[in-house]
Amino acid sequence: MAATYFSKRNLQFLLHDVFKADELTRYDYFSAHDRETFNLVIDSATYIADTLMHPYLKEVDKNQPELKDGKVTVHPKVKEFLKAMGDAGLIGAGFSFDHGGQQLPQVVSSLVGFILMAANNGMMYTGLTTGSAHLIASFGSPELTEFYLPNMMAGTWQGTMALTEPQAGSSLSDVTTSATPLPDGTYKINGQKVFISAGDHDAAENIVHLMLARIDGAPQGTKGISLFVVPKYRPDGTGNFVDNDVTSTGLYHKMGQKGVPAMHLTMGSNDNTIGYLVGQPHQGLPYMFQMMNEARIGVGMTATAIATAAYYAALQYAKERPQSRRLNEKNRLDAPQTAIINHPDVRRMLLFQKAVTEGSLSLLVQAAKLYDLSHVLEGEEKENAFLLLDLLMPVAKSYPSEMGVQAVSQSIQTFGGYGFTEDFPVEQLYRDIRITPIYEGTTGIQAQDLLGRKMTMKGGKAPQLLFAEMSKTIAEASTYDDLKPYADQLSAELKRTQTVVMNLMPHALNGDTERYLADATLFLELFGIVVVAWQWLIQATVAKQNMVTQNPSGDDLAFYEGKIHTMKFFFHYEVPKTLGLAKRLTDSEVLTIVTEKELAL
Amino acid sequence: MAATYFSKRNLQFLLHDVFKADELTRYDYFSAHDRETFNLVIDSATYIADTLMHPYLKEVDKNQPELKDGKVTVHPKVKEFLKAMGDAGLIGAGFSFDHGGQQLPQVVSSLVGFILMAANNGMMYTGLTTGSAHLIASFGSPELTEFYLPNMMAGTWQGTMALTEPQAGSSLSDVTTSATPLPDGTYKINGQKVFISAGDHDAAENIVHLMLARIDGAPQGTKGISLFVVPKYRPDGTGNFVDNDVTSTGLYHKMGQKGVPAMHLTMGSNDNTIGYLVGQPHQGLPYMFQMMNEARIGVGMTATAIATAAYYAALQYAKERPQSRRLNEKNRLDAPQTAIINHPDVRRMLLFQKAVTEGSLSLLVQAAKLYDLSHVLEGEEKENAFLLLDLLMPVAKSYPSEMGVQAVSQSIQTFGGYGFTEDFPVEQLYRDIRITPIYEGTTGIQAQDLLGRKMTMKGGKAPQLLFAEMSKTIAEASTYDDLKPYADQLSAELKRTQTVVMNLMPHALNGDTERYLADATLFLELFGIVVVAWQWLIQATVAKQNMVTQNPSGDDLAFYEGKIHTMKFFFHYEVPKTLGLAKRLTDSEVLTIVTEKELAL
Repeated sequence: MAATYFSKRNLQFLLHDVFKADELTRYDYFSAHDRETFNLVIDSATYIADTLMHPYLKEVDKNQPELKDGKVTVHPKVKEFLKAMGDAGLIGAGFSFDHGGQQLPQVVSSLVGFILMAANNGMMYTGLTTGSAHLIASFGSPELTEFYLPNMMAGTWQGTMALTEPQAGSSLSDVTTSATPLPDGTYKINGQKVFISAGDHDAAENIVHLMLARIDGAPQGTKGISLFVVPKYRPDGTGNFVDNDVTSTGLYHKMGQKGVPAMHLTMGSNDNTIGYLVGQPHQGLPYMFQMMNEARIGVGMTATAIATAAYYAALQYAKERPQSRRLNEKNRLDAPQTAIINHPDVRRMLLFQKAVTEGSLSLLVQAAKLYDLSHVLEGEEKENAFLLLDLLMPVAKSYPSEMGVQAVSQSIQTFGGYGFTEDFPVEQLYRDIRITPIYEGTTGIQAQDLLGRKMTMKGGKAPQLLFAEMSKTIAEASTYDDLKPYADQLSAELKRTQTVVMNLMPHALNGDTERYLADATLFLELFGIVVVAWQWLIQATVAKQNMVTQNPSGDDLAFYEGKIHTMKFFFHYEVPKTLGLAKRLTDSEVLTIVTEKELAL
Repeated sequence: MAATYFSKRNLQFLLHDVFKADELTRYDYFSAHDRETFNLVIDSATYIADTLMHPYLKEVDKNQPELKDGKVTVHPKVKEFLKAMGDAGLIGAGFSFDHGGQQLPQVVSSLVGFILMAANNGMMYTGLTTGSAHLIASFGSPELTEFYLPNMMAGTWQGTMALTEPQAGSSLSDVTTSATPLPDGTYKINGQKVFISAGDHDAAENIVHLMLARIDGAPQGTKGISLFVVPKYRPDGTGNFVDNDVTSTGLYHKMGQKGVPAMHLTMGSNDNTIGYLVGQPHQGLPYMFQMMNEARIGVGMTATAIATAAYYAALQYAKERPQSRRLNEKNRLDAPQTAIINHPDVRRMLLFQKAVTEGSLSLLVQAAKLYDLSHVLEGEEKENAFLLLDLLMPVAKSYPSEMGVQAVSQSIQTFGGYGFTEDFPVEQLYRDIRITPIYEGTTGIQAQDLLGRKMTMKGGKAPQLLFAEMSKTIAEASTYDDLKPYADQLSAELKRTQTVVMNLMPHALNGDTERYLADATLFLELFGIVVVAWQWLIQATVAKQNMVTQNPSGDDLAFYEGKIHTMKFFFHYEVPKTLGLAKRLTDSEVLTIVTEKELAL
């Protein structure tokens, strides 16, 4: 088992040096904080991760949740973990003081999630509670808020996001769970939900589902969907709780993230499920969408965290495992074997993992900072932060997921045969991470969101803002001779991206959405490489600045040199992939749209 | 569970139409066969796969082998399967009549392996027996051959390849298992072997290890390694068997291919392990290498088979699963949902899987045909077939493995959340296939073999032969208007590949092997894409020829059109990846070689 599963040094670098989190404390809302309190939160999360999560990585995977007689049991450590998180104030860390939170910015609370998920992503419980409590706090009545938030933030009640239905996976407009108004203002809920993470378990005293349903007579499609709180046990009005007829119909057996039960739930088996409307009728989807960015940062963080843990396991192995001699010394049979980290191909695999994970993490902290700014800024600045965040979200969710899968695959490859065995953690992490390109909007859905919505909204203002931000980075990096070639390359990549967009745009203007989006996933891949290249140039520039101003030595110097080296690696190995993607994206041959003469697939 | 796990139609197309297997029957050695006997063998394998393997896919995965009190138990169906394979003559199908085989060409017997592995790769037992029996038949004494072959070919004795040791994974020159000569001409064996597939189990009456060891006083390195037969039970000279002191020290718990035990074996715990020398002393590695092509075709076939089974599962699901509306009809909420196969992004994923799996299979049948030709041809023709086969082997092993992993990942993505659950076979196939880029020489080792050995041997004659073969395909394809653009593109890719090689060659000539091979894995990737593009052009040309000459309709027409369409897909989506790879490979910046100023990784 790897002793190290993330780099605290790198977190500090991103949080303070690159994204200057303490700038946020100038704003009223975050003014109670400073660098010190941020670091305390990080330390507190690390302590929980080290003591209650990481030691149980394999155990939680091996002892999956069980559904028996309608009850779901999970690993006993989960309850302890939930309590510790509640006690440390980490479930509601990002909530306002009014709501009993710590009013911490997202840059910090999302890094808490990163640390926890790097330690043991099979204990992915609290992020779900945070997200659903946030929906109640943002859109629910004061009564709902007062009743549900304290127990959720304490870790005694579990929150869930109950969106998906058997017949409506990615297509929320086809949700059919029904809500029938009752005289007392509550609703009777009937329907089924699938893949509900943490949807039932014995480590929490109650489960609070934030559920999408359709009020009788509501409009068709996404405009007729409302949001409800549907608890497992509901208050009976006398201070007691009664069963709310939410049945655990099934528990999915999954390839990974086995510690978290994914439930199939049935509401209304005995016609006795009550739901409490959150906010206004028919506003369920807009509400959900306002929480989507937070949830998607969470998935990106989870993917990055899993890949980071795998990278550190592979790195440690590569430093310790002797195998063969260096290629220019192949015939010196009497020489001892060298550590495999000295083989170029192994270094390439490790640098790839480092480039993907640290590039992803930088992008996610960038997104979290924009999230925070979009809350504290005013006027046009606020709107710009929102637009930029919205544009980056599909990338911040899918790049870490898609590339994280590949990074963990390279972690396995670094181990060779041992990587395929349960003697090391990477096989588990490989299974775990594979869900991240699927849940919270598949990569295909993210791609449609990016090209179909985010690139074109407000007349294309979001990409303009992004390109302006990138130009600032390019200008700054260009002041250093050794960074300038990479700044120039990023400029060229920007132009290439714009050319691709220009080539696609006519299809959008003609209203031929199917053609416009036919290769959207490839566009997302291209865009992701360019965005992460930008993040690497930002990191390298800050590393260079620190080298110039602080004249570091030892580990600090090595850290900064490692950043600049990995930036170069990204530009030399990853960025060239845009050539092939751009070629395909500007190619007029259509091969994936169904025509009358059906292709025999 | 998917009902279909491979396409018999496609096998027939490759075997007969594309690679004209019956041409081989003109040669004396294969003259007992014809198209009819080939098809009978395929049918017999299909019957075993359908009845004894595919129905137990999940069961074998769920009920892993167990090591208890030194004994390994495997799924009870394994014994039945081994017997059926022996009875059908399929274990020794490729052996000469003299050796009790069917003298079948590799094109047919390797497709038998494909069918079995597509059905249930967790029952990967017989290929190992075939390979090790082949070593005995090729290099062993008549006594060894007579004693071991009949039982191995009958499926009552299991064969293994016992190469890997704990301290010597990819580095066979560091093998330390020792062989001490005894007066009777046998050897006392001491040492340990790891990751020995099927290295012990109760479905066979004896286990026959083909083991590398070093005779006392042998030269250092690969020149001092000898090959031995080391059985689990050895004959005592009186017609009885005694325990040969081969201890099952451990059983690896793996992520996939769980049905086959991977053993840690200790020889000589009681100083009582006897080995029987195969052939001459110190020739162990050359002997192994002569079997390597066969073994690597086997791994390529296994990877292709797994990815094929996943593709057919995804295809079936995509045809049946309704979800959302077509993109140009998004707002027609009253319209029923469409099957997901009608979404361009899903079609892209399916075409990718088809392009990878059918391209890989074509390459492997091509390699098998060359294998056969290299045995029946004479003089220069024979040498040329050998050279071409040797050059293609690293690609035929690693392209199906590396791209197969990605293809199965896309099978999961096609299923969405369901793909991550045990309700469908793809999660298992995703776990299974991940071993293929590792065993039988990792991708990194294959890459060094390709660039470091195969490209340069005999003054670069092998790539010259390959390019000549490709030029023939290009000329033939160019006679059809709709194929000509792709023939031209393949010409351009050939030139690009040559430019890359010219750029790298100076490092080889300077003796700087480490620099020459630093990005060998990327070269292998580039070369693989070009080689599989060639295979697709071959397939499309034959499809086109059949369309012209046979004027087909219905399913036949659809089959040929599907081939041409998928060829186009490969050229439009996969071939452009060579742009980025060539850019990196012709780039002078070195980022992966350890320098004095060590990079902090």
